[in-house]
Amino acid sequence: MHAQPSSPPPLHFIEQSLFSANPDAWRRLSPSIRRREYKRDEPVFSNGDAAHSLIFVCSGWVRLSRQTPDGQETVSGLCAPGDIFGEAALFPHASYPNDAQVIGDRAELAFIPASELQAVIRHDSAFSAGILALLNERVAQAQLRLEHASTLSSAQRLGCFLLRLCRTEAKNEAVLRIPVEKHVLASYLGMKPETLSRSFQQLKSTGIAVSGASVTVASIEKLQQYVCGSCSKSGHCDSEQLRE
Amino acid sequence: MHAQPSSPPPLHFIEQSLFSANPDAWRRLSPSIRRREYKRDEPVFSNGDAAHSLIFVCSGWVRLSRQTPDGQETVSGLCAPGDIFGEAALFPHASYPNDAQVIGDRAELAFIPASELQAVIRHDSAFSAGILALLNERVAQAQLRLEHASTLSSAQRLGCFLLRLCRTEAKNEAVLRIPVEKHVLASYLGMKPETLSRSFQQLKSTGIAVSGASVTVASIEKLQQYVCGSCSKSGHCDSEQLRE
Repeated sequence: MHAQPSSPPPLHFIEQSLFSANPDAWRRLSPSIRRREYKRDEPVFSNGDAAHSLIFVCSGWVRLSRQTPDGQETVSGLCAPGDIFGEAALFPHASYPNDAQVIGDRAELAFIPASELQAVIRHDSAFSAGILALLNERVAQAQLRLEHASTLSSAQRLGCFLLRLCRTEAKNEAVLRIPVEKHVLASYLGMKPETLSRSFQQLKSTGIAVSGASVTVASIEKLQQYVCGSCSKSGHCDSEQLRE
Repeated sequence: MHAQPSSPPPLHFIEQSLFSANPDAWRRLSPSIRRREYKRDEPVFSNGDAAHSLIFVCSGWVRLSRQTPDGQETVSGLCAPGDIFGEAALFPHASYPNDAQVIGDRAELAFIPASELQAVIRHDSAFSAGILALLNERVAQAQLRLEHASTLSSAQRLGCFLLRLCRTEAKNEAVLRIPVEKHVLASYLGMKPETLSRSFQQLKSTGIAVSGASVTVASIEKLQQYVCGSCSKSGHCDSEQLRE
C-alpha cells in the first residue's frame, strides 16, 4: 500500500464528490482515508497490482496508461483535481487494469482502502447506488470519447479537452496551464504529436494562443461554437452549461 | 412501453447471464420479465425516452446509435444474442442516452421493468454487486475500444470484431454471418466504409474470405496472431482463451 498517513485528508472536497448524499457512508469511511504527496513521474500503481484503494486527486495530475505486447503505450486517462480513479478497488480480489503515474510537478492523492469501501457498499444501499452512478458516468465518458473519435476532427477533440479545463472558469476567457507533455496529451486524444501541433494551429482562428504549457482561450463561447455542434451531447454537457 | 407479454421468456438464458449468483433477485424479477419480437429496422427506443426497462437480446441484433447536431450518426454499440443494453434503467428517472434499433431480419428482446429492477437493487446487496460488475465490464469494454482506435490498424480492429463473433466456435475455423450492413459496421469500428472494404482485403492473408454477408475464417489462431499482439488485453481476453 502506497498511502501513508500524513496530515488530515482534504475532507470537504472528497465528501462533496461522492458522499454528499451519503453522510452515513462518509462517517464510516472518512477515518480510514489516507493522503500522500507524490513527486513528478512517481508511480501510483502498476497494471496488475492488487487494487488496494479507490483514489481521489486532491491536487496535480495523474495519467493512466497501458502497454500492448508489441510495445505501444496508450494513455487511457488524464485525471485532474477532483477526479477519482482506481475503481477496481470496488471489487473483491480485483487488480488495477492499467499503470497510474503522476505527471506535472507534484500531486496529492487521497486513498480509501478497498476493504472498508467494499464493506460499506455491501451494507449501505444508498451509497451503493451512488457508486453505480459513478460507474455509469464512466461508461458515458468513455462512449463519448469513442464517438468523438469518429465525429470530431483532431482540432475539435483538442478544443473539447480545453473546454473541460475551462469548466471552473467564471469568465468568457481563460488562461490554462496544461501540465501534460505534448506526446501524452496527443496519445490521450488519439492522435500523433504532429497532429496535435497542427490542431493547436487550427484553433488559432477561434482565439486560442499557445505559449509553452500555457494556453489562452480568448472566447470560451467561440471555442464551444467550433467544437460542440459535432457532439451528440451538445446541450447536456458541463462544459457548455457553465457559460449559459 | 414497447414490451408486451407473449410467451414465457427464455428464462434459462437470462438467469445465467446476470442472476447466476443471485437466485433471490431472480425469483423476484423473473415473473415481471416480458419479451417481444421485433422486425428489421424496428425501433426499440429513442434517445431521450424514459428508461423503462433493462433489455436482453434473446436473438437477433440491435444497434445503438446517436446523432450529432450537425447530422452525423455514430454507432456506439452492436448488441448480439446474450448482450444486455439499456442500463439507464438501473437509475431512477433516467432516460436512454441513444437510439436502439433492430438490425438483421428480426430480433427477440426480453425486458426487465426499471421500477422492479431498482427496487431489487436497493434491497439486495449481492445483486447490486453483480450490477456493479456489469457496469465495470462496460467501462472496460469502452476503454478497450478507445485504446484499439490508437493501437490497432483498421484491419486489426475488424479482425478483433470477427474474433468476437468466433467466440462460440469450438473449432479453429468458422463461418460467420454478419447481420450488420457494411456502413453500420464501419461506423461501429470507427472507420469509413471504403476503409472497411480495404480492411477485409488486408485480412485475406490471414485466411479470411468474404462472400456477401458471409465470412469464412480459415484459422482463428492465425487471425489472433494478426490482431492480438497489438492489444493490451492480450492474454486476458475471452476471444483468445477459447482457443487455448
